[in-house]
Order: sequence, then C-alpha cells, then structure tokens
Amino acid sequence: MDTLPLVLDLVGTFVFALSGASAGVKRQLDLFGVLVLSFVAGNFGGITRDLMIGAVPPAAISDWRYLAVSIPAGAVTFGWFTSVNRLQSAVLLFDAAGLALFAVSGTQKALAFGLNPVTAALLGMLTGIGGGMVRDVLVAEIPTVLRADLYAIAALAGAAVVVAGNLLHLPSAPVTIAGAALCFGLRLIAIRRGWRLPVAHPSNSETAQTKRDDDDREH
Amino acid sequence: MDTLPLVLDLVGTFVFALSGASAGVKRQLDLFGVLVLSFVAGNFGGITRDLMIGAVPPAAISDWRYLAVSIPAGAVTFGWFTSVNRLQSAVLLFDAAGLALFAVSGTQKALAFGLNPVTAALLGMLTGIGGGMVRDVLVAEIPTVLRADLYAIAALAGAAVVVAGNLLHLPSAPVTIAGAALCFGLRLIAIRRGWRLPVAHPSNSETAQTKRDDDDREH
Amino acid sequence: MDTLPLVLDLVGTFVFALSGASAGVKRQLDLFGVLVLSFVAGNFGGITRDLMIGAVPPAAISDWRYLAVSIPAGAVTFGWFTSVNRLQSAVLLFDAAGLALFAVSGTQKALAFGLNPVTAALLGMLTGIGGGMVRDVLVAEIPTVLRADLYAIAALAGAAVVVAGNLLHLPSAPVTIAGAALCFGLRLIAIRRGWRLPVAHPSNSETAQTKRDDDDREH
Repeated sequence: MDTLPLVLDLVGTFVFALSGASAGVKRQLDLFGVLVLSFVAGNFGGITRDLMIGAVPPAAISDWRYLAVSIPAGAVTFGWFTSVNRLQSAVLLFDAAGLALFAVSGTQKALAFGLNPVTAALLGMLTGIGGGMVRDVLVAEIPTVLRADLYAIAALAGAAVVVAGNLLHLPSAPVTIAGAALCFGLRLIAIRRGWRLPVAHPSNSETAQTKRDDDDREH
Repeated sequence: MDTLPLVLDLVGTFVFALSGASAGVKRQLDLFGVLVLSFVAGNFGGITRDLMIGAVPPAAISDWRYLAVSIPAGAVTFGWFTSVNRLQSAVLLFDAAGLALFAVSGTQKALAFGLNPVTAALLGMLTGIGGGMVRDVLVAEIPTVLRADLYAIAALAGAAVVVAGNLLHLPSAPVTIAGAALCFGLRLIAIRRGWRLPVAHPSNSETAQTKRDDDDREH
Repeated sequence: MDTLPLVLDLVGTFVFALSGASAGVKRQLDLFGVLVLSFVAGNFGGITRDLMIGAVPPAAISDWRYLAVSIPAGAVTFGWFTSVNRLQSAVLLFDAAGLALFAVSGTQKALAFGLNPVTAALLGMLTGIGGGMVRDVLVAEIPTVLRADLYAIAALAGAAVVVAGNLLHLPSAPVTIAGAALCFGLRLIAIRRGWRLPVAHPSNSETAQTKRDDDDREH
C-alpha cells in the first residue's frame, strides 16, 4: 500500500475508534471494554472484508499501526469523555470522512483480489459499516446503521464510483477521489437535512400479534 | 455445482431471506436494514460454513445470484409486509424446505472439502441454522433456534443421513433426497405437534440469585 | 501438538463449556441451545484465532475431541444444573486455569504462524476471552469481560510472557509455564480481592442526553 492511502486508512480507523470508545463509555464498560470497542469499531469492517476475500491474517491484525491508532483513540475518549463528546459535530464530520475512505479503499482491495464488481462494491460498503455494526452488537443493541439515517447508501455510492471507474479502465487516482467525495458529500447532506430511508410500519395490532407468536414461528 | 442443487440452494436462500426481512420489518428497521437482514438470514449460514472450511471467497459473496434472490425477497417483504405475513404458514413450509436443502448441501460441501463425518454433519446443520442465528443477533435477541421448537435437530438428522450414505459409499442422489426428506418431514411434524426440546428450569430463587451475581462470576 | 498441551487445551475447553452451558440454563434455553452455548464458550476463542491466522479448518472444527469434551460439559450442566452451580468456586478456579492455558497456547500458535509479537499476544488473549464474548452475545448481553473484573488483562499478561520468552529465545517449556502461572495467579488474586479496571462515569444528565440522541448520531 502506498503512503497516502495508508495514512487515510489510519485516519479513518482513528475516527471510527473514537465512536467505538464513546459507545463503550456511555454503556459504562471498564477501561478494557472501551479499548476493545475502539479497536472493533475502527477495524472490524476491514477484518471482515479481509476474511471474506481470503486476505489472512487481516491487515488490521498483522499491521501493528492499526492497533497503534485505535488504542490512543480509546484512551483519550476514556480519559476525556466529556470533551470528546462535546466535539460531536467534529466527530461526525471525521466519521463521514472515515466512511468515505473505508468505502473506496475497501472496494479497491476487493477488486485487487479479483472479486466481481457487484461484490467488490458491497465489500467496500461493508468495510465502512462493519466496524460500527459489531460495536453495536457488542453492546447488545440493534446496529444503528440498520435503523436510522442515510449512511450505508452513501458508502455504497462511493464504492459504486470506484467499481464503475475500474470497469471503464479510468485512471485510479481521480476515480478514487471522486468516489470518496461523493460518499462524503452525500453523508454530510444527509446529516444536515436529516435524510433517512423509509421504514415499513406494520400496523400496531399486527406487531403485537407477531411479537407474541415469534417463538413459535421464526427461525 | 449442477443446475438442480444450485436452484434448490437459491430457493432456500429466497425463503430464508423472507424470514430475515420479516424480522427487520417487525423491529422497524429502515429499508437498508431490512435488505441486510434478508441477505444475512439467507446467506450467513453458508458464509460461515465456507469460512470454516476455507472456501473463500464464500459462494454467497462471489456468486451474484445469491444476492440477486436475497434482495427481491427483502424488497417484497418491505413493500407488502402484511401480505407476506399473512402467508405465514406457506413461509413456514418453505422454510422447512430451505432448512432441508441447506442441511444436505452444506454437509456435501463440507465432505467435499475433506472434513471428517461428524464435523461435516455439524457444518451442514450450521448451514441451515446459521443465517437465522445471525439475523436474531443483529436485532439484539437470543436466537430462536436456541430456545424454541425442534429445528436444528431436524437439520442434523438430514445431515446425518448424507454422512452415513457417504461412509457407506451409497449413490449420492438418493441419499441426498432421503436426507432432505427426513429433515423436511421431521420439521413439519414438529410444527404440527408443537414438538420442543426440554428446557432446564433452575428454581426461581436460584435464577434470581445467579442473575445478581452474574457480573462477578461469569466470563 | 504434543499430548500434554492437547490435554491442557481440552481441559480448558471443558471448563469454559461448563460456563457456557450455565449461561444457557439460566436464560432458559432448550437442550440444543445449552449444548450450542457450551460448544461456543469452549471453542470460539480458538476458532476466531484460527480464522484470523488462516488455520482453516479451525482445530475445534476438524478435531472431534473438542466437540467430545464440550457436549458432555453441556449435558452435565443441563441435567444437574443445581449441583454444577453449587460448585461455582471450583468452576471459577478451573476457569482461571482454562484462561491461562488458552492464553499461552493461543499465543504460541499465533507465533508459530509467523505473526508479529504484539499481534500474537493479542490473539492469545482473544483465544482466552473470545468464547465467553460470543457466549454473551448469543444471549443478547454485553460481554461480561468488557464490563467487570480483571480478566482479559490476566490473559494478556500471560501471553506477554510467552512473547517475551520467544523474542529472547528462551526455552519454550519453562516460559510457557511461567506465562500460564502468571495469568492464573493474577486471576485468582483479582477474584479474591475484587480487583476491577476503572470505569469512566459520564455524568448522569449527559448519559441521558446522549442516550436520547443515539439514533441520530452514532454509526
């Protein structure tokens, strides 16, 4: 990996690690738990992608620098939670940047491992959202990305640009920048305007009914 | 893979994807969340098996057809939840068919990758139940398959038939059909008769006690 | 693997499987659920490590003996829960032993697969704590290891001894014993003295506030 992509990847890891640590502090995890959540949020998207494409050991495991940026992010959040929490809007901005970076770099890695375009774009999206999903599962909550906000779609749009550029044999650098910019821009607009995806509302009586029957019906 | 097994595998994926999407709609996930749950429920059993046996990238990732049947299942459930939900007994029937198909095809794939008979049968079972387990974890619930109903045992029975046939060098096709039929039949009888596995009931006072002590004791 | 390490590994698996089965009985899982939790708690740390280092199929999958010790542990706990539960202090002792064994053996396996020292120590720790984490996720709870008690740090300390010995080219056997003894001792002292890691306490008003905003902010 060249220097610039690696630096961007590590910046994304750091920002995502902040979000993981914040979630840990809010749920009153101990110091170890907070550090685990920061590592998980920062790296599990990439780890899952690497397991899927057969790139073992995953980069986040074999390259100590991913750990080296995740732990300080967790420690800072643990020690100065009030301050980090007050920077929420800055964190949201960086988080959008991290999402954009992960989406395009994840897509490129999947393409480099010979996956087909559709799969590569989805793995790029997974790189961006996977860490946050596992973070939420570890604190026993439904992943936010499945419920709220326009988030994964922004990552998917950025990934699609990279895939399209690859199919059209366009030069890699500008395509990457365009993909990341699209993801970043979409995400910022979604935050500002409160864009959300539609939610299906089963009628209340139905929900109650199906809830009661769940144990017998679903597997 | 021949055409027939692939078609059956995709049918199973579709039906399981319906169950994932239903769970998502009931928990009021947004459209993206519903589509993720449908993909997860339809494919994560097979993905987990493939990761375990070293078949990377997993078929559900590298073959676009698995995605192509999962997404429509999710979209249909999202758009017409009331109708899909009303077809519950048909869905249960198809779900039993999906379980049977996944159990036998998963076992065969594990055997083809050289795993021992016991492991192969368990991975066949895992192929059948894994997607539903991850679906439930993502909505922050204890997987239904661990709590209720005779479900995994039916899959294991079907898988055992395939393994036994393999050990006895019986012709593959009739053995596969017999295994799938056994799983399907067991599952239908279990639904009709309400068969369940036993549950250990720790006395109430004990449960309360151990609950209180959980944080200190368990790891 | 030589006989002694294998025996120790299987003893650790058995003890961890008891903890998994106990968690399952307390949450009123059925027999199948209890057996799954016992297998998961006993083996998922090692499985995750093996997936990360590319040792597929994982030993716990390909070697039937891991299954053969996990299932009886689950069955005994299911059938005689009251008795097993009464042996809690013995189980805690064995659990500390299991943690020590998994931490050192996991580290050695990671080193043998060529991972760098820091990563190897972390994978050793993961081997020790991973099974319990997945156990807790499956019963929809925040993993205990992230919230309470000095547990993972003991595993990490033992793993660090193994890594240090490896870097210094010390003979393997005494280093392994020293690492396991350190982990075991630390854990016992932590239990006796109630040692815990610090927890960050966001002010109450803040927690309430951030809780309410969670859906919009976090990803």
